[in-house]
Amino acid sequence: MRMDITEITKRVDHTLLGQTASWEEIRQLCEDAIRYGTASVCIPPSYVKQVKAYTGERMAVCTVIGFPNGYQTTAVKAFETKDAIENGADEIDMVINLGWVKDKKYKEIEEEIRSLKEICQDKTLKVIIETCLLTKEEKIRMCEAVTAAGADYIKTSTGFSKGGATFADVELFKKHVGEAVKIKAAGGISGLEDAKHFIELGADRLGTSRIIKCLKGMS
Amino acid sequence: MRMDITEITKRVDHTLLGQTASWEEIRQLCEDAIRYGTASVCIPPSYVKQVKAYTGERMAVCTVIGFPNGYQTTAVKAFETKDAIENGADEIDMVINLGWVKDKKYKEIEEEIRSLKEICQDKTLKVIIETCLLTKEEKIRMCEAVTAAGADYIKTSTGFSKGGATFADVELFKKHVGEAVKIKAAGGISGLEDAKHFIELGADRLGTSRIIKCLKGMS
Repeated sequence: MRMDITEITKRVDHTLLGQTASWEEIRQLCEDAIRYGTASVCIPPSYVKQVKAYTGERMAVCTVIGFPNGYQTTAVKAFETKDAIENGADEIDMVINLGWVKDKKYKEIEEEIRSLKEICQDKTLKVIIETCLLTKEEKIRMCEAVTAAGADYIKTSTGFSKGGATFADVELFKKHVGEAVKIKAAGGISGLEDAKHFIELGADRLGTSRIIKCLKGMS
Repeated sequence: MRMDITEITKRVDHTLLGQTASWEEIRQLCEDAIRYGTASVCIPPSYVKQVKAYTGERMAVCTVIGFPNGYQTTAVKAFETKDAIENGADEIDMVINLGWVKDKKYKEIEEEIRSLKEICQDKTLKVIIETCLLTKEEKIRMCEAVTAAGADYIKTSTGFSKGGATFADVELFKKHVGEAVKIKAAGGISGLEDAKHFIELGADRLGTSRIIKCLKGMS
């Protein structure tokens, strides 16, 4: 299967979530995202306002909530989501409470996601389940919780734990999420071939900075 | 210099901040903290209420804010601090905005710390500067910011980045913080000898789970 480069770039959330990212690095990320036509820029919450003012209508702004450890209270995640949207975020990538998964508090997880989706309304909500820390059974349960809660996407990884997206996880998601739930693969996507394969397996979005770096290197 | 074991244990924030920590693991941490008389238990925000209900007046509860990446907005860190204190937290370990350090926004960092200390009032505020990501000059600037903002402690590390506490950093802190600011060494403290040396160099608190594990292994 051949795939046009724009078929890949339009699915990229061009991402910079390093703790020490400076404004100049974030600004450059935005310029590259606009130039290559990515789906969004994914940046830290404290940069949302400034990025929105800089990019305006030229680029969707994605940020992260309860990130990367997921163990904030639901009240804090809800406040953080409201704050991000008020500051101009178009897309919200939240992390589930992984301790709750281990304690089988699946209902609580579903309710937390639902309460964040209510805040997001028409803004896109992606739910990071950090697959590298879960068993297969737990991943399936999370596919069900994300579907039941009405989130827009399930996402594999934060990029801050011990592993990133795998082909097997995207295949598992495809099998177990509802039709309305899309898939975002994130963490460790190595290049264009890798990206193409994730898309072929059913990933609608890719969280990565490397794809655009590869393209910049080629041009 | 000889040092009684209790001189060490009373300075330990007995810590479990793993993403997947279950209630049973947290409960056991509390039991061990009480048994060995540590300064506090340091646990994820979503467990504060449950831990306070479980330990009551037997143990101080410490939790983490803007953790571990530090790039939430000040509004979110403030809300998270209020939420933690309402849930029963006695001590608050916040992470500074490291992107702001790189952009030399030292005044903004100082103001953020001050606004959190205003919320904390008589509760202890510790400020994590994540030394492994900073230059020597930046560490000194942060010693000054933490002092000027009136925080109770400066703390070396989150334990989630590429390095933990070093003897050199504690010595540097000792030289550059004001008299009212205490020092917490955290991340990678390997055992009792290590702990003793950190204390001798001027650390008033140690963030670690290993000390109590060592003592349990010996008893």
